[in-house]
Amino acid sequence: MNQTDLSEIFAQRRNRLMEALARHRLDALALNPGATLTYLTGLNFHLMERPVVALFTLDKPPVIVHPELEKAKIEELPFLVNAFPYGEDPAEWPAVFRRAAQYAGIDARRVGVEPARLRLLEFRYLKDAAPEADFIFAEEALTLLRVCKDEIEIANMRQAVQIAQQALRATLPMIRPGVSEREIAAELSLQLLRAGSDAEFPFQPIVSGGPNSANPHAIPGERRLQNGDLLVIDWGAVYHGYVSDLTRTFAINQVEAEFRRIAEVVEQANAAGRAAARPGVACQEVDRAAREVITSAGYGEYFIHRTGHGIGMEGHEAPYMREGNTQLLEPGMTFTVEPGIYLPDRGGVRIEDNVVITATGAETLSDLPRELQTLPL
Amino acid sequence: MNQTDLSEIFAQRRNRLMEALARHRLDALALNPGATLTYLTGLNFHLMERPVVALFTLDKPPVIVHPELEKAKIEELPFLVNAFPYGEDPAEWPAVFRRAAQYAGIDARRVGVEPARLRLLEFRYLKDAAPEADFIFAEEALTLLRVCKDEIEIANMRQAVQIAQQALRATLPMIRPGVSEREIAAELSLQLLRAGSDAEFPFQPIVSGGPNSANPHAIPGERRLQNGDLLVIDWGAVYHGYVSDLTRTFAINQVEAEFRRIAEVVEQANAAGRAAARPGVACQEVDRAAREVITSAGYGEYFIHRTGHGIGMEGHEAPYMREGNTQLLEPGMTFTVEPGIYLPDRGGVRIEDNVVITATGAETLSDLPRELQTLPL
Repeated sequence: MNQTDLSEIFAQRRNRLMEALARHRLDALALNPGATLTYLTGLNFHLMERPVVALFTLDKPPVIVHPELEKAKIEELPFLVNAFPYGEDPAEWPAVFRRAAQYAGIDARRVGVEPARLRLLEFRYLKDAAPEADFIFAEEALTLLRVCKDEIEIANMRQAVQIAQQALRATLPMIRPGVSEREIAAELSLQLLRAGSDAEFPFQPIVSGGPNSANPHAIPGERRLQNGDLLVIDWGAVYHGYVSDLTRTFAINQVEAEFRRIAEVVEQANAAGRAAARPGVACQEVDRAAREVITSAGYGEYFIHRTGHGIGMEGHEAPYMREGNTQLLEPGMTFTVEPGIYLPDRGGVRIEDNVVITATGAETLSDLPRELQTLPL
Repeated sequence: MNQTDLSEIFAQRRNRLMEALARHRLDALALNPGATLTYLTGLNFHLMERPVVALFTLDKPPVIVHPELEKAKIEELPFLVNAFPYGEDPAEWPAVFRRAAQYAGIDARRVGVEPARLRLLEFRYLKDAAPEADFIFAEEALTLLRVCKDEIEIANMRQAVQIAQQALRATLPMIRPGVSEREIAAELSLQLLRAGSDAEFPFQPIVSGGPNSANPHAIPGERRLQNGDLLVIDWGAVYHGYVSDLTRTFAINQVEAEFRRIAEVVEQANAAGRAAARPGVACQEVDRAAREVITSAGYGEYFIHRTGHGIGMEGHEAPYMREGNTQLLEPGMTFTVEPGIYLPDRGGVRIEDNVVITATGAETLSDLPRELQTLPL
């Protein structure tokens, strides 16, 4: 895309933000760098010790408080922003926040914030600069902003899935008894880059073998694969800032009968969850469809997490596929379906795909085989 | 190290935390996952939509509020913690925070927090759970906790430097006119993994050629190298959680005389900054030593950032080498020395090394040639 197209896309998104703010009776939005800021402006900062905040109001161009040495990023933007840069002395920070807040006119207004993103560092300076402002958690207004993906976003996610699948295929030949979780994770990371993933992965690959596979969020360790292990690999790529997030489970040579049984149950649960997904269905119905399969098979207590989460510019975002979430699915929503059964101290199975809601149903973006494949190949 | 050694190290660190809290008249510390939590416990979480917080008090084992599906990480800890897990329904969060706060006894107490780390998400629940607590920004108490590295930490950083250097050497042969910044950055990332870096890089490599090299925080783009370009590469590895952060500048074939001149000046400034570093010297003296060289050469206005920052478990941490910072250097402190000259729209030079303060002076951990090397090789 050229600069004009980009500028137009960001302007449309900011217009939708203005509508969302008005709907939620908010006068402004204060953002730390992250997915929402990137969505609205294309801006990307690696957040460290220096404060960075953007202010969006109903009547002025975006305001950005940033370190002077990031000014080239601001100057390259294809639209007008009001930049408030500061130098290397933290003593300058309060004054620059005051000037920015005054220009944006946020004092005594209702200012939305992202609680899972905004740090106390920036919040303190904002509060000092606008002592009469009312800071309001704006998850709800913002969730709807990014939750339905357009065609370009979906094309990026489709590519992120393809890259992830290619990387796993390239990694499988090195998996055999004696290889450690860390070695497999390192090779998979390398293959993700080779296959074209952006370097900033949504998360580090989870590679968990044997008893570790019963821990859904295991960190790859020094344990070496043994015959009879289950092996869970949960990995993803990122392409033009959009992520994929897949899981497949493998048998290291011959595994016990119950492991094969739970793999079948999880595969059926995964299929049931994906089949339940279509416009107008509540998120909790996707969870229920997958969970029902596992519960009926007698393993309900071993499925210890929700069935899925939204993905897009973030590895986890709305909508969440969990009991109690009555949000209705809409075309363009993208999320994971990832049921699992975890037998403590023995092993676990998880099968995760990425789906997008279409006008009439759901399309699964991932197509690697789901049945329990035996390794080595 | 075995579990007993690790347990002992974490216990010593938590004892030093208790002393620091007492010195700063704090009763407790509330931490989001990040370097400080890892330093104190070894715990590592990928922070997303679910709240995670740890509470350290003077008289009880650490308290951790965490998602149930992370419980294996807690159970594996080689010391006692009081875990407050929650399930998949966010409606459970307020109650679990209340139980944790009550158990820890933080209400009406002085509770330290990390402003550049703690999110509003956790802060809100903590405040609701301990409405009479006084939450106090504890940067100062915490800075001293991690700022002097022990031998094991320095050995990890030494290895992170070696990995980074090996990766750059392996990348240089592909650098020539016509290659894009992104292609170089991707190859360098891949070589970092091959050379043994942990997969979670401290930051993505900066590869900036031609006019982009005048932007200290450029993001690698599609621009292809041309004859006459300066090329700045700023990259780092991570080993056992400890980072390196280096920069070298290259000439793409013949470059103009002024580029060679500024490269010499920056090389001298880098040497002067490193030579000024020793125990008892204020951080600002390292900045002044490097800056004086550049200012004397007439380029003072083009050195637009501080001379360096601490490194360790974080890519940027205390101590900061900047004017106004009177903190005195002590043995075990580790930081970057990275002066630069940036000629707008033309090109820039930065040379960055990692140093550790010793009993009598400073040791430079990095030893790649610093002079302006011409590429292709």
